[in-house]
Amino acid sequence: MTAAHVYIGTSLDGFIARTSGDIDWLVKFADEHAIESYNEFIASVDVIVIGRGTFDTVMEFPTWPYEKPVFVLSRTLKDVPDHVKDRTSVLNLEPADLLKYLSERGFKQAYVDGGKVIQSFLAEDLIDRLIIARVPVLLGGGVPLFGSLDADITFDHVKTMTFSNGIVRSFYQRMRDL
Amino acid sequence: MTAAHVYIGTSLDGFIARTSGDIDWLVKFADEHAIESYNEFIASVDVIVIGRGTFDTVMEFPTWPYEKPVFVLSRTLKDVPDHVKDRTSVLNLEPADLLKYLSERGFKQAYVDGGKVIQSFLAEDLIDRLIIARVPVLLGGGVPLFGSLDADITFDHVKTMTFSNGIVRSFYQRMRDL
Repeated sequence: MTAAHVYIGTSLDGFIARTSGDIDWLVKFADEHAIESYNEFIASVDVIVIGRGTFDTVMEFPTWPYEKPVFVLSRTLKDVPDHVKDRTSVLNLEPADLLKYLSERGFKQAYVDGGKVIQSFLAEDLIDRLIIARVPVLLGGGVPLFGSLDADITFDHVKTMTFSNGIVRSFYQRMRDL
Repeated sequence: MTAAHVYIGTSLDGFIARTSGDIDWLVKFADEHAIESYNEFIASVDVIVIGRGTFDTVMEFPTWPYEKPVFVLSRTLKDVPDHVKDRTSVLNLEPADLLKYLSERGFKQAYVDGGKVIQSFLAEDLIDRLIIARVPVLLGGGVPLFGSLDADITFDHVKTMTFSNGIVRSFYQRMRDL
């Protein structure tokens, strides 16, 4: 099965955006180390899965930010604009079915991005690797990274890297009972 | 003014206890390193401030766990049982007034503990040092460490220590504008 990876930045109190969607507090920390780390991560995946919210955000960027195939998970979006059709498809699938779909097409490592999509994968315990960069700021509210679960999910801590701007980036691997 | 310190363990998703109050998921990680680290922290403070909830929990312990003077912040508790009176007092004060009270009595470093008390201090930006140990478990719900704020609070990251059981302990210092 295709492995699913999360790579994301959060505030100390676990938010990935302000309620308005603003990530001004996060962008401040996007220095060369952060970009290097992201590039290294992206090189380790072969497909990107995002939700409708992330897709809408990305469509407002001046240039398309992804160099790998992108699948947009959505129940309502039917199609994508012509100019991104060569690199983007819409799928209306549940997380497990999506991973099966990707697996059947030869994709091995999926980058799963976007708050709701990440939560839907975690709710089914389908995230294999979790890379969280915490910036040293409390926001007091916003869009939370994590949501509710039916049961605890335990990870192995692989490594943590710290940076001079205060980012603490931890790498976790899902510890699965065999 | 007396400096206020937080030293606490949370799940990866930011909870300090299950909704039931259970900390079984946290206690699993209380190995010798965790105890050593706690002892080192406790040696750096000269007074302990807890809320009513923590006080009630601690009163159920077989032995009194603190070796420093304890102040219980409560609006409703009037007094403490006789056998802990020599080491514990109840105060009905707001966070800033409490720190002033402690300062006037010569206390320099306060350990502020308990979810609601920590949140009330953070809401007034009165926490100087934040030491968070994250255990590699997602709970999906429970008692959150952090609450809402009127404005962002930025910290300096001082150091992060990682442990073989998966704990990542980060030390933050409040970065105050001068």
